[in-house]
Amino acid sequence: MNSYGKLFRVTTFGESHGKALGVIVDGCPAGLKLDEAAVQTELARRKPGQSKITTQRKEEDQVEFLSGVFEGVTTGTPIGMVIFNTDQRSKDYSHIKDVFRPSHADYTFQEKYGVRDYRGGGRSSARETAARVAAGAIAKQFLKQLGINVHAYVSQVGAMKLSTPYQQLDLSTIDDTIVRCPDPAMAEQMIELIDQTRKNRDTIGGVVSAVIEGVPVGLGEPVFDKLHAELGKAMLSINAVKGFEYGSGFEGVEMLGSEHNDQFYSEDDQVKTKTNYSGGIQGGISNGEDIYFRVAFKPVATIMKDQQSIDAEGNEALVQGKGRHDPCVVPRAVPIVEAMAALVIADFYLRNQGSSLEKLI
Amino acid sequence: MNSYGKLFRVTTFGESHGKALGVIVDGCPAGLKLDEAAVQTELARRKPGQSKITTQRKEEDQVEFLSGVFEGVTTGTPIGMVIFNTDQRSKDYSHIKDVFRPSHADYTFQEKYGVRDYRGGGRSSARETAARVAAGAIAKQFLKQLGINVHAYVSQVGAMKLSTPYQQLDLSTIDDTIVRCPDPAMAEQMIELIDQTRKNRDTIGGVVSAVIEGVPVGLGEPVFDKLHAELGKAMLSINAVKGFEYGSGFEGVEMLGSEHNDQFYSEDDQVKTKTNYSGGIQGGISNGEDIYFRVAFKPVATIMKDQQSIDAEGNEALVQGKGRHDPCVVPRAVPIVEAMAALVIADFYLRNQGSSLEKLI
Amino acid sequence: MNSYGKLFRVTTFGESHGKALGVIVDGCPAGLKLDEAAVQTELARRKPGQSKITTQRKEEDQVEFLSGVFEGVTTGTPIGMVIFNTDQRSKDYSHIKDVFRPSHADYTFQEKYGVRDYRGGGRSSARETAARVAAGAIAKQFLKQLGINVHAYVSQVGAMKLSTPYQQLDLSTIDDTIVRCPDPAMAEQMIELIDQTRKNRDTIGGVVSAVIEGVPVGLGEPVFDKLHAELGKAMLSINAVKGFEYGSGFEGVEMLGSEHNDQFYSEDDQVKTKTNYSGGIQGGISNGEDIYFRVAFKPVATIMKDQQSIDAEGNEALVQGKGRHDPCVVPRAVPIVEAMAALVIADFYLRNQGSSLEKLI
Amino acid sequence: MNSYGKLFRVTTFGESHGKALGVIVDGCPAGLKLDEAAVQTELARRKPGQSKITTQRKEEDQVEFLSGVFEGVTTGTPIGMVIFNTDQRSKDYSHIKDVFRPSHADYTFQEKYGVRDYRGGGRSSARETAARVAAGAIAKQFLKQLGINVHAYVSQVGAMKLSTPYQQLDLSTIDDTIVRCPDPAMAEQMIELIDQTRKNRDTIGGVVSAVIEGVPVGLGEPVFDKLHAELGKAMLSINAVKGFEYGSGFEGVEMLGSEHNDQFYSEDDQVKTKTNYSGGIQGGISNGEDIYFRVAFKPVATIMKDQQSIDAEGNEALVQGKGRHDPCVVPRAVPIVEAMAALVIADFYLRNQGSSLEKLI
Repeated sequence: MNSYGKLFRVTTFGESHGKALGVIVDGCPAGLKLDEAAVQTELARRKPGQSKITTQRKEEDQVEFLSGVFEGVTTGTPIGMVIFNTDQRSKDYSHIKDVFRPSHADYTFQEKYGVRDYRGGGRSSARETAARVAAGAIAKQFLKQLGINVHAYVSQVGAMKLSTPYQQLDLSTIDDTIVRCPDPAMAEQMIELIDQTRKNRDTIGGVVSAVIEGVPVGLGEPVFDKLHAELGKAMLSINAVKGFEYGSGFEGVEMLGSEHNDQFYSEDDQVKTKTNYSGGIQGGISNGEDIYFRVAFKPVATIMKDQQSIDAEGNEALVQGKGRHDPCVVPRAVPIVEAMAALVIADFYLRNQGSSLEKLI
Repeated sequence: MNSYGKLFRVTTFGESHGKALGVIVDGCPAGLKLDEAAVQTELARRKPGQSKITTQRKEEDQVEFLSGVFEGVTTGTPIGMVIFNTDQRSKDYSHIKDVFRPSHADYTFQEKYGVRDYRGGGRSSARETAARVAAGAIAKQFLKQLGINVHAYVSQVGAMKLSTPYQQLDLSTIDDTIVRCPDPAMAEQMIELIDQTRKNRDTIGGVVSAVIEGVPVGLGEPVFDKLHAELGKAMLSINAVKGFEYGSGFEGVEMLGSEHNDQFYSEDDQVKTKTNYSGGIQGGISNGEDIYFRVAFKPVATIMKDQQSIDAEGNEALVQGKGRHDPCVVPRAVPIVEAMAALVIADFYLRNQGSSLEKLI
Repeated sequence: MNSYGKLFRVTTFGESHGKALGVIVDGCPAGLKLDEAAVQTELARRKPGQSKITTQRKEEDQVEFLSGVFEGVTTGTPIGMVIFNTDQRSKDYSHIKDVFRPSHADYTFQEKYGVRDYRGGGRSSARETAARVAAGAIAKQFLKQLGINVHAYVSQVGAMKLSTPYQQLDLSTIDDTIVRCPDPAMAEQMIELIDQTRKNRDTIGGVVSAVIEGVPVGLGEPVFDKLHAELGKAMLSINAVKGFEYGSGFEGVEMLGSEHNDQFYSEDDQVKTKTNYSGGIQGGISNGEDIYFRVAFKPVATIMKDQQSIDAEGNEALVQGKGRHDPCVVPRAVPIVEAMAALVIADFYLRNQGSSLEKLI
Repeated sequence: MNSYGKLFRVTTFGESHGKALGVIVDGCPAGLKLDEAAVQTELARRKPGQSKITTQRKEEDQVEFLSGVFEGVTTGTPIGMVIFNTDQRSKDYSHIKDVFRPSHADYTFQEKYGVRDYRGGGRSSARETAARVAAGAIAKQFLKQLGINVHAYVSQVGAMKLSTPYQQLDLSTIDDTIVRCPDPAMAEQMIELIDQTRKNRDTIGGVVSAVIEGVPVGLGEPVFDKLHAELGKAMLSINAVKGFEYGSGFEGVEMLGSEHNDQFYSEDDQVKTKTNYSGGIQGGISNGEDIYFRVAFKPVATIMKDQQSIDAEGNEALVQGKGRHDPCVVPRAVPIVEAMAALVIADFYLRNQGSSLEKLI
């Protein structure tokens, strides 16, 4: 439904053009000094209108804290946050009221629910992810106290692919370019490609890569709730995502076991692996190495070209190419990927406190 | 933990070399004529020793039904099934008692729990999936009553990739070859590659593709529990899986929106799409088209070569290349992928009965 | 945590003296014409200051709908509601900042979380139940469409106990008296008792009885999630509740099986029972008879007398008898009991759609 | 459904006259030395035929451990246990195949599922609680390591009520009498009453009281998952239970706030309360005092007298008074109450590890 997580649990609500979006963060441990400005900063990284390669819609995405924080510190009670919608120009959407936009959720919502809020996609709009980013920003602050850091960046736009391993990138520069790719030369080309696509009134897909540093050994469950299975679900739950791979991923398929196995060694009393095709996870449980993965985003379905479709009665209908939208979703998806990753890790951190009696006594 | 599903819910237990494996299927609707032989048939598709390209271990994997079925019909109460382990040759594993095998779960289990059943990987062994296959076989029988069918097949071994779209394959021939690839010529080559890899005392990865036909419109939840997000989690929870993509997947990244959008049309009062890059799911909800996806499996970590590693004290130790294992996991993974897919669909089928008031009154 | 329900699921947030209270109702079926005024009416039944026998605090408890409703109809997406706090006179509470009030949650919150919002009890305040009442009001509207009605009334205040069976009461008159007892003579005595208690600067306990009519046969799960077990949990989760009994309850203990068994008979093709000691539930599953139960509330812990206690350092400290509070909680608890009962029934209604294959095909 | 608990989670299966009962304990921390004999001892306390005041059916209830324990120690993986049914005399039950026994679950099961295993009540039989007792026995061993002990005893049979407070009873003598009442004189009278009832071919109700010592401060969640709400649900999920009260319970209703409030004081740097009407729980969270509660059991529905009823077609039918059953359920319910209480506390113990950041860093 609209909740994610077992012990660090978020529940979001709100439609694209309704009164407000919001989220409840339930289970955040008490005693965390909450940096509200940092939450706002994450929202700014996701908000529309932030650069020439994103949609030109304007939403301030100003978050209001309603509960769960007292004198600047979390109290262990649910943290309620709300973002009132300001740019509700509903008239923009009258042209899609009665028609199913291709590769959107119009048809499936209509069939599932019998009614739908057609304005801007309603609940199926990626606007919902603003609520996730706010929640994830809190998870990130929690993880920071535990020495865990989450980074995401754009590693591919269309066929333009950054093949440099993340270890050779300067992840502190991710936000230096508007496309959020930490390789400046590649970033420039990506920006150019997105801009050209926009001018062609079209859209294009991309890939967001992520790295999580500092995860202690032992997070994740051995069978159904493997750490990477939850990360995969979390990523696949983001709008427009079509694929997820971690560690060696789909490329690992072509490798031999003798190449792919990560050799253990011991250094300074710490167990490490010489390679990390495992992506920091073995048997569904973190092994202390960096966790890394890739997330595939399809081209945005809203394009500035007229498209043939049908209406709710099955009659042919034209979807007009107008409105404001992103030519490529990945630059704004970076904080969303980080947010969801942070939520997954925070949840397992709490769930896995009692895996052995020794830790409890 | 060790359960999957909300309303159609399975819980598995058992270690590779313990007394037994088992599974409880909770929430299977009453009144289903249960074909116990068909459950056994699915287990036979997964069991070791079934062909020259699988491990030569022998396990009969005979399932016993303990509850939930009365006079051949499900009663709505939990269906308990147990598979007693027969091939427990524990001595085989004494050589790994004190050493961490590369890219296995030995190290992470040891750190997480402080103890581990080292015999054959214990709980982290893919032997656990026998329990899933038994449960999935029941889900498949349930889905069949609803006109839903799940097929999986091997579409890649190492670099040898079947690029024929599934629509052009005869899915009824999947089990005709021991590698479970429905293209006979490709199957032969795959078998040869696996056999060669085995002779080299090595292992190799592969991809399993799946198709689900007959899913009605409306399954899945719009936000976190998107249908493909749950499918992704379910697949990523299978041992050795490194990636998941559905519909256009990672390749879709390189497409333009104008190419990728699936055009709606109406035929015989049914809404259809001309292409199906969406993979049968839009906004996380099934749209009535075929659902299809791909699952990447890494090369099996157990190889027949000696490997350098460390023991629990951090001392260098040799992992000897002996034992019996699969040179490539995908032929036996086919029924596991089908089982997990069936469990996901069955669960959503039950969860989504009440999405609109109209359906309830 | 702060959520209740599996498929009809509510999550509340907010502190007594924070910015706002709120609730998300997730899983309410689409297509329900939502009567927002009726939600407000339920809140008015719960709100402080409504009569001379309730606390004289003033809170308007005006609910705002933020999402999930479009053109007056539910859309199947989460319904977000918020109630901004207006009467935040925090200064009133400075006297309890450093002291643990007897039989309140001050001490347990402090120990569990290390911090607490001491203003008016913070999250442990019964003010949280306003959010439940708003959510329950929606559940009630959903149930009404299914022919199910929930009634609660005050059946005991202190030792003053209404022993008339509910069948002989006119449940439509519950709200006719400020104490919400449908026996006018008894109501008058109860009001007098509460008023006297208030004048004595003390508080007193009471019992709320409830009746649910029109529940179809088959709701509830046979083992852990028995219908009455969930009702019990829901009631015991209400502030100040100390006990729950349904059907014959604690009195049934003294009966013989031959007296207590409810004889089945058939009338107009309907199965009925001659007596209803079962309280409408057999084996954890509704049997079509009225469901009824009783809920015990302790005397409110806040009294207008000075009390001895300790502070966080363990030093003796005086809790001053001031502030505004209820002399008896049951009149305002009536809508809360109804709300929680409605949430339980709505949830089971959705969960139990697929208990047999016959219902699904 | 058939699972209980969030992190310490049990799932049971099995029918009264099926092949076997069983249970999976998922989430028990690794490293617990498991005393299998102690599990068997708990089962012996529950098993039929143990004394003249219980049913004379014979079931050995021999538990087999199938997984999750290695070299005598829990491994953190699910513990599978199975109890094969030996006394399956199904013929005994042919007389109830087509008739609905009064105050049993025959009718509700038939309506809910369309089919039912009528032999001995099938899944609705209290025989299912054997699985709970086995699981609870493991929870008790876990709690013992944490200094937590659970005791239950019979405090009422029919109108015969033990009013001595538990503090004045010697709880180590509970099992000294077959009725499990720690007051020898009262025990004798209870035994006499049960025996007389049995001779009258009738049954009678009773109350089980429970005390939990050593629970640390801070277990429980403030809102829906209050500690006593979960205890209440767990108790109400036991067959034949009609009511639950904790601390002052229903009697507390008649008290004044000034009497009922538990005064805090400090002793040896420990916070204590002078009285304990709160029953060890304040605001839903344990406060370190003893937790105590009472559970009401109705008279067993199976009696040795003929009763009028109807069959599935609505025709009048006679339920014959034969078979073997308990004249009073409470002596055998004592270990069940203890088991469920232990499961609740174990689950909260694991869930509440991360309530404050301070505990995590």
